[in-house]
Amino acid sequence: MISDQLWHQENLCRADTMRNDSTLPVKKTLKSFGKAQSPLKPRHNVTDENMKEARKEILTIVGRTGIDDNPGNLKSHSSTEWSRSPVDTYASLIVFPHSTIQVSDIMKVCHKRRIPVTGFSGGTSLDGALAATRGGICIDFSRMNKILEFHERDMDVVVQPAVGWEDLNEYLARVGVFFPPDPGPGAQIGGMIGTGCSGTNAYRYGTMKDWIISTTIVLADGTIVKTRNRPRKSTAGYDLTRLMVGSSGTLGLVTEAVLKVTAKPENEQVAVIAFPSTYKAVSTVIDAVQRGLPLAALELLDENTMSAVNESGYTDKEYKVTPTLFVKFSGTKEAVKEQINVLGALAEKYGRESFESSGDPEEIDALWSARKTALWSLIAQKRDPDDKFLSSDVAVPISRLADIIEETKDKFKEADLLGSTLGHVGDGNFHTSILYGEKDKAVAEKIIADLQRRAIEMEGTVTGEHGIGLALRDMLEEELGENAIDMMRKIKFALDPLCLLNCDKIVRVEAAEPSEKPAK
Amino acid sequence: MISDQLWHQENLCRADTMRNDSTLPVKKTLKSFGKAQSPLKPRHNVTDENMKEARKEILTIVGRTGIDDNPGNLKSHSSTEWSRSPVDTYASLIVFPHSTIQVSDIMKVCHKRRIPVTGFSGGTSLDGALAATRGGICIDFSRMNKILEFHERDMDVVVQPAVGWEDLNEYLARVGVFFPPDPGPGAQIGGMIGTGCSGTNAYRYGTMKDWIISTTIVLADGTIVKTRNRPRKSTAGYDLTRLMVGSSGTLGLVTEAVLKVTAKPENEQVAVIAFPSTYKAVSTVIDAVQRGLPLAALELLDENTMSAVNESGYTDKEYKVTPTLFVKFSGTKEAVKEQINVLGALAEKYGRESFESSGDPEEIDALWSARKTALWSLIAQKRDPDDKFLSSDVAVPISRLADIIEETKDKFKEADLLGSTLGHVGDGNFHTSILYGEKDKAVAEKIIADLQRRAIEMEGTVTGEHGIGLALRDMLEEELGENAIDMMRKIKFALDPLCLLNCDKIVRVEAAEPSEKPAK
Repeated sequence: MISDQLWHQENLCRADTMRNDSTLPVKKTLKSFGKAQSPLKPRHNVTDENMKEARKEILTIVGRTGIDDNPGNLKSHSSTEWSRSPVDTYASLIVFPHSTIQVSDIMKVCHKRRIPVTGFSGGTSLDGALAATRGGICIDFSRMNKILEFHERDMDVVVQPAVGWEDLNEYLARVGVFFPPDPGPGAQIGGMIGTGCSGTNAYRYGTMKDWIISTTIVLADGTIVKTRNRPRKSTAGYDLTRLMVGSSGTLGLVTEAVLKVTAKPENEQVAVIAFPSTYKAVSTVIDAVQRGLPLAALELLDENTMSAVNESGYTDKEYKVTPTLFVKFSGTKEAVKEQINVLGALAEKYGRESFESSGDPEEIDALWSARKTALWSLIAQKRDPDDKFLSSDVAVPISRLADIIEETKDKFKEADLLGSTLGHVGDGNFHTSILYGEKDKAVAEKIIADLQRRAIEMEGTVTGEHGIGLALRDMLEEELGENAIDMMRKIKFALDPLCLLNCDKIVRVEAAEPSEKPAK
Repeated sequence: MISDQLWHQENLCRADTMRNDSTLPVKKTLKSFGKAQSPLKPRHNVTDENMKEARKEILTIVGRTGIDDNPGNLKSHSSTEWSRSPVDTYASLIVFPHSTIQVSDIMKVCHKRRIPVTGFSGGTSLDGALAATRGGICIDFSRMNKILEFHERDMDVVVQPAVGWEDLNEYLARVGVFFPPDPGPGAQIGGMIGTGCSGTNAYRYGTMKDWIISTTIVLADGTIVKTRNRPRKSTAGYDLTRLMVGSSGTLGLVTEAVLKVTAKPENEQVAVIAFPSTYKAVSTVIDAVQRGLPLAALELLDENTMSAVNESGYTDKEYKVTPTLFVKFSGTKEAVKEQINVLGALAEKYGRESFESSGDPEEIDALWSARKTALWSLIAQKRDPDDKFLSSDVAVPISRLADIIEETKDKFKEADLLGSTLGHVGDGNFHTSILYGEKDKAVAEKIIADLQRRAIEMEGTVTGEHGIGLALRDMLEEELGENAIDMMRKIKFALDPLCLLNCDKIVRVEAAEPSEKPAK
């Protein structure tokens, strides 16, 4: 049972946030818009008549089996359990293209008819990227799920957007290579590019932007663009490829991607290291980063999480209830041995309470199980079945990590709410979760907003890997300032002047009402 | 003597290309422009009167010592020995700002007065990025050469654009860390971002885009934008930071950058491996890449280069005249030992003729000297002192590397020209150089253009690390197609509608005459 549910863990932490958040935007009339170039109020046409005519034209492109207007499906493509749409607007048609050409032809119809479009691949987005805020059409890429080419000698692979990273890795495993970005299960390449995702492998291998060589995209008017060729190194003009990464499908729809792959590490070992304090755990991490220790993963679970893990019964092992590092090592046997020795010495220097490690596959699973079941264990702590989860994805310069974690835990205590922090400590990126009942909603939201603002004060970001989407647009402006947002908006309007592609995501195209802004 | 001149090696190879290339563009009237949105013929105002008024205003910003209009300096800021301007137009004023605010104020003047601007930092560009095709103002960043902050615990550094990578590394060395991108000597951070440079460290550490966290930029209208905060991991909206990388100062002027740094590897060892053929050398490299061997550098010199090295007398050592791999290893002692064993076995499998390695600093220098003096040795082979150099910087998927190198060498033979290839083989990126006399100019240019087109056919790029600048705009269009160039042009016009910032670079803003297109 649990294992089936586990894949929703990372997702769920944000799901209920969206569900309960009535402050998210709907269509507004144009207002003064700071120093931005006048944004155009998108004049879409989603009248029944226009949609009916569009449907006819799209039928000639994809055929009868290539469309769907089942109300349940329309809703589930815009609003999922883990990323509710804040508006009741859904797409009125789902289209299933088979090829880049079909996507281009569909976009030509939508462009001519001014119909807004949202792309859909794995559907695991946490940030409201799927919400069809303006209705229109959903392009579901599920029929574009092929691995088109694998160039073993070049160590790259050409895939369609609906290839899942887990399936890709299963395919690649037969020749001993893999694709490192490992976000939530179910995520697919198209959305992974849109989100700019990462995962536990990011400390060693970097994020989505580091593993993408090129994309084929379809612009709002149906134009097909290949952003780069297939060399591993290139400085051929503006980096359109990386402009796609993290853009939530607002600039173009990715219909093909060339990805780098790399050799699968030979040996794996895991260590679980308990510390007397967050500061000591983080100091160990900072020292390891400074030495350039090539650890495979470096995760920190706080004492609240460890307590939840013990109480949940999801693991056989009883862990110490203290801040605990979960570390993965990989490489040649000698290299792994050396890394463990170095890290062990560092942990000792900072007074670790215990250090357990193993290279045995079963023991690895046992040791790592706390990390795996962490979020599920937290959810199991609900005081009331109706309690909600609220979470965040901030990243700060690593020297500030212990401070922000400790401050956040103090706020949980102060508010008497069940909260926890865990995350990708090697990157300074961590997820905070709060369990709360309806009466504490405002308090919980304020804690998250305060935490995000504190991360900004520390020169950090409100999103390390989950993306901006719909939910974090205003926080993005607080983070980078009006000028950066204006620059993003100029790019958006230059490439999609009618705001057809995933309108309202990343940057607002119409001014927000004061009530829509994050809690202060 | 040689050591002083050595730093021009990489640069010189392209210098004479530019000098002799009369096909590069000058101002043209607007023509039909493919499918692009109508490009505006930039209407700059560089009349004496306007420039005189601008000078007065700029004086109030930077003071008497902050401007220069010495004709020699004006020329050398637009046209260097290694990157000649194809036009006789130079800036009419050089301005030396001290701060981001001053750059912003200068741009406000230029924006109001429609004066074009070119940024200047190290001046080592090979691609014509410095050419002041439309006159106007040159912003020289030499007074913005400070390391502003070094965050040792966060492993990042905040620098101004005129910090050289060598000076930065000297500064960082005292605490055992370094900044990996290592382009030609003299290059500075501003230009390195504009070029999207790399160097011999790229195989292990990646390129400029991988080592930049954030930039502060000034847009064409003087707006100051901070592209990201300072977390090592972020997916906060469109990746404006990486949009700057490789943009040749055409979208914004970088006035500050946050760079990642990493631990300096402890032990270094070098191997020189001679092979009976390019194919066998490249096969060894491909196997090493497939195993994910974390080599520190992986360079291939062809037999022509090795012969030139022996003949030049710049090294004491006599090398075999065959395709030769130059490999650097770094890491812990155990890791280096393992890597050498693995690579040694691979080289043996592919029938290497000799394998020499050493960890002794003096012997390392001796072994590596051929790589260091390669281009200089080639230049020494001129049959006539007036002979010119012509070069290229293509990168291809590594499986095609041996093919394209062999084909190119055949062309040298066919044309009876002295030519050679050497480069960053681990990335599939290599530089070709041809020595030729005036009578063979057309033949030499044709060989380079054919090679670039062949790289494109192989799904490669015309530039792995030198950038597009002015010289490769038309080849960029052949590489990526009209749609990609249109997309780049839309971004350019969205951010700089008056085409004030390094106009004519990366993308044409006015149609080319047929005679301007690369040789067919």
